[in-house]
Amino acid sequence: MIKPSIPSGTRDFGTSDMLKRNFIFNTIKKNFELFGYSPIETPAMEKITTLTGKYGDEGDQLIFKILNSRIHESKQKDTLLNEFKASLEASKNSEALTEKALRYDLTVPFARYVVMNQHNLIFPFKRYQIQPVWRADRPQKGRYREFFQCDADVIGSDSLINELEFINLMDKCFAELNIPVLLKFNNRKILSAIAQVINEPDKIIEITVAIDKLDKIGVEGVNKELQDSGVSLNAIEQLQPLINFKGSNLEKLNVLTKIINTNEIGLKGIEEINFILNYYSQTKLKHILLELDITLARGLTYYTGSIFEAKANAGNLTSSILGGGRYDDLTGIFGLKNMSGVGISFGIDRIFDVMNELNLYPNTVNQITTTQLLLAHFGDNELTHCLQIANDLRQHNVNCEVYPDLAKIKKQFDYANKKQIPFVCVIGSDEMQTQLYTLKNLETGEQLKLSLNQIIQKLK
Amino acid sequence: MIKPSIPSGTRDFGTSDMLKRNFIFNTIKKNFELFGYSPIETPAMEKITTLTGKYGDEGDQLIFKILNSRIHESKQKDTLLNEFKASLEASKNSEALTEKALRYDLTVPFARYVVMNQHNLIFPFKRYQIQPVWRADRPQKGRYREFFQCDADVIGSDSLINELEFINLMDKCFAELNIPVLLKFNNRKILSAIAQVINEPDKIIEITVAIDKLDKIGVEGVNKELQDSGVSLNAIEQLQPLINFKGSNLEKLNVLTKIINTNEIGLKGIEEINFILNYYSQTKLKHILLELDITLARGLTYYTGSIFEAKANAGNLTSSILGGGRYDDLTGIFGLKNMSGVGISFGIDRIFDVMNELNLYPNTVNQITTTQLLLAHFGDNELTHCLQIANDLRQHNVNCEVYPDLAKIKKQFDYANKKQIPFVCVIGSDEMQTQLYTLKNLETGEQLKLSLNQIIQKLK
Repeated sequence: MIKPSIPSGTRDFGTSDMLKRNFIFNTIKKNFELFGYSPIETPAMEKITTLTGKYGDEGDQLIFKILNSRIHESKQKDTLLNEFKASLEASKNSEALTEKALRYDLTVPFARYVVMNQHNLIFPFKRYQIQPVWRADRPQKGRYREFFQCDADVIGSDSLINELEFINLMDKCFAELNIPVLLKFNNRKILSAIAQVINEPDKIIEITVAIDKLDKIGVEGVNKELQDSGVSLNAIEQLQPLINFKGSNLEKLNVLTKIINTNEIGLKGIEEINFILNYYSQTKLKHILLELDITLARGLTYYTGSIFEAKANAGNLTSSILGGGRYDDLTGIFGLKNMSGVGISFGIDRIFDVMNELNLYPNTVNQITTTQLLLAHFGDNELTHCLQIANDLRQHNVNCEVYPDLAKIKKQFDYANKKQIPFVCVIGSDEMQTQLYTLKNLETGEQLKLSLNQIIQKLK
Repeated sequence: MIKPSIPSGTRDFGTSDMLKRNFIFNTIKKNFELFGYSPIETPAMEKITTLTGKYGDEGDQLIFKILNSRIHESKQKDTLLNEFKASLEASKNSEALTEKALRYDLTVPFARYVVMNQHNLIFPFKRYQIQPVWRADRPQKGRYREFFQCDADVIGSDSLINELEFINLMDKCFAELNIPVLLKFNNRKILSAIAQVINEPDKIIEITVAIDKLDKIGVEGVNKELQDSGVSLNAIEQLQPLINFKGSNLEKLNVLTKIINTNEIGLKGIEEINFILNYYSQTKLKHILLELDITLARGLTYYTGSIFEAKANAGNLTSSILGGGRYDDLTGIFGLKNMSGVGISFGIDRIFDVMNELNLYPNTVNQITTTQLLLAHFGDNELTHCLQIANDLRQHNVNCEVYPDLAKIKKQFDYANKKQIPFVCVIGSDEMQTQLYTLKNLETGEQLKLSLNQIIQKLK
C-alpha cells in the first residue's frame, strides 16, 4: 500500500481554509458585480495553439500539456515507444503527443472568448472570471502549480475612466479585506519613450524586463542585464537617474517630464498619469497608497498603457497580490484588431497567504464548521424526532446536524466541542412531549428552555 | 491566423449561463450547509497512482493524463522521439510520459483526503465538494469532457439516518430548483443476495453491470450480456421475475422477500429498505417520488448498501441528475479500513440542461447582467461626477456602471437596452447642481426625479 499524497505545488483545502478563501472570493465577487462586471467561465483545457506563443519562451515551457487520450499507458516500455512512434508518424510534430493544455492564465482564454463571441457581446464588454490556472513552475513559498486567478477586464473602451473605476474597486476590496495596500502604477508609454530618448527603441522589451527586476536584483543587477542584452553603455548611463529616482509622485513626474522632453508618446504617457493623479488629488483613497513607480513593467509584453501592481503595505511582505494594465491589442493575436482593454487580476492565493500571516479575518470567518446547532438524542425514537426538528430549523435557514448514530450523550457533546459547533440541543422523551428544548451554548455554558420558534429566532 | 476554438466536449459559459448555473450551485451549496456538510477542495491534478485501478478498465482509459513537464515540445520529430526515449529509459514504464492526471471524480480524491488527514478530522466527517472533473469520453448531447460534480458525503457512520437525511436534502434541493424528481433506490445487499440465491455468487459484478443497463438495452440485451459473461441459463431464468417486476414499493418488497427467503445478507438488505420506506410512510416528501428499483446498480463496484439515482420526472427526460450510495470500504484502497460512508453527487451539468429545457428558472435569474443601474452623462465633468455617485450607490450595495466613454446619450441608452440593465440615470449640469436625478425604468418607461438616497431606497 503506497501512502497517498498529492502532486507537489498543489494543495488540499480543508473547511477552515475554505471558509477563509470563500470570504476572500465572495468579497471580491460582490465588488466586481457592484462595479458592473459580469461573470463568465472558460474551460480548464484550451487547445495548445491557443496558448503557445502568448507568454514568451519561459511561459511556454510552464504550460501543462495533456497527453492525447489515444496514447494509452502501457506496462511495457517497448509497446509505449512503438505507440508513440506510430502516433508521431501519423501527425505533425508535437501534436502526436499533445493537443490540449491547461490554461496558464485567464487573460488569453478571455481574449479567445471575446474573439469567438464578438458578434454577440455588447461593448464595452465588462467581465469577471474566477477560476484556477496551472503552471509547471518550481514550487516554493507562495508559488503554487495550481492557483486561482480572479480577473476583471473591460474591453472596447479606451477611456481612462476605466482605470479610475479599477482603482476605486481595488480600494473598496482591500478595505473590506482589511489589507493596507501599496499600489504602484506606471505607464508603458513612458517606458517606450525612455527607450526612444536613450536611443534604444528596439530594446524596449529588454529594458522593460531588466528594469522590472530592480526589486529582486538591485541596480547593479539591472545594469548587468541591460549590458548583456546589448543596450549601449551610453544608454545605460542615461537610464540611471530614472532607475534610482525617489520622491513624491509629483516630484517624480517633474523629473520624468524633463527627461521625456518633447517625445510624443512620452508626453501622452505623462498626460495619462496626470489624469489619474489629478483625480486622486481630489478624491481620497481609503485603503490604498498610490505610488508612481517608473520601474514597474510586470514583464508582460502586451501592456500598452497603464500598469498596476499591488503589494500588502504591512510588515516585510513583498509579494505582489494584484497586477493589471491596459492592452491595446490583446485580441489582435486572434484576429480582432483595435480593441483597447484594461484589466486587473487579484492574486487570491497570495492574498490568502497574506491574510493568514497577518490574521486579518473577521471572527465569523475564523471557524471550522458552518453548523450552528447539533441535535443530540437518547435513542431511536428521539433520533427520528430530531430529523423533524432539523427539517423545521432548516426551513428557517438554521444550519444544523443530527448526530446520526446511537451514542452516549458525552460522545455527542465531544463531537460538537471538537467541531466547534456553537449550540447543542439534547432531545429526550420529555422534550418530545413538551416540545420545549434546552438550547446549550457550548462557549458560555448558558442553557435556555425554548420552543422551536424561540430557537429559530435566537439562531437566525 | 487560425480561427480560435475550444477543445471538443468543453464549453464556455457566458453571463446568462453563469447566472443560471450560480443559481443551481448556490441552492445546493446552501442546502449542503443547512444539513451540516462543510466545504473542502482538492487539487485538479492527482498522482496517477491515486486514480488508476479505481474506476475499472473502462474508467482508467478515460482519465486525462498530464504530460510530464520535463518533456518539452520540440519542433523536430527526431528530437521529440529522442527526448521521449531518454525519458523512458530514465524511469519506469509509463511514468516516463506522465505522473499526474486530472481528477475523474470527487469520490476518490475525497477518500485520499480522508486517509491523509485521518488524524485531524472529526468523525463522522461530513463534507461537500463542488469542483469540475474531466473524462476523455466521446462527447455527445448531455455528455461533456469537463463537467462539475457536486458531492456530499458522510464517512465514519453506518447509521441509516444518514440515508434519510440525504433523501430529505435532495427533496429540499429539488423543490427549490423546481424539478419534479423520480428517485430510484435499491440496496447492493439485495443484488448480492440474488447472486447467491441463483447460485452465481462470483458473478455479482457481471450481473449488476448487466441489470443496470436494462433501461438502455432492454430485457433481451440484459439476458444476452448475462449469457456472454458466463452466467448459467438456469440462473438467468431465475432472474426474469426480478428484472421484469412491476408494482408499488410494498408489492415489490413482498416479491423480493419471497425470493430472498432466508439469505442472510438479503434479509439485511430488506431490513434497510424497510427502514427507509417506513420513515417515508409517515413523513411525506414534497418533490420526490421514491421508487424501489431492484435493477438499479449504477455500475459502481464500491457500493455496499443503499444505492440512489434521481431522474427528472417530467417530459421524456431520461438522463440521471443525481447518483449516490453507501460504501463500506472506500478508504480501504488507501489503507484505512472499516470506514462506512454514504454520499450523493448532483449532476450539475445535467440539472443545468434539464432546467434549460423545461425553463425552470425564476425571473430574477433569467438575466444577462447583474447591473441594476447605468449612469449616463453629457461630458467630461459629468463623467467624473458619475464616479462619485457610483461609489455612493455601491456603498449601499447597488450594482451600477458608469458608461466610460464620451458618447451620445442615445448610444449610452442603447448599451443599457442591449444589456437589459433595468434603470438609467442621465447626469447633466442640472443634476450636478440640484443633486436630484431622473431615474428611468427602461422596461416601463417610468421616470422619477429622486435624490440619491431615494434612488438607493428604490433599488435596494
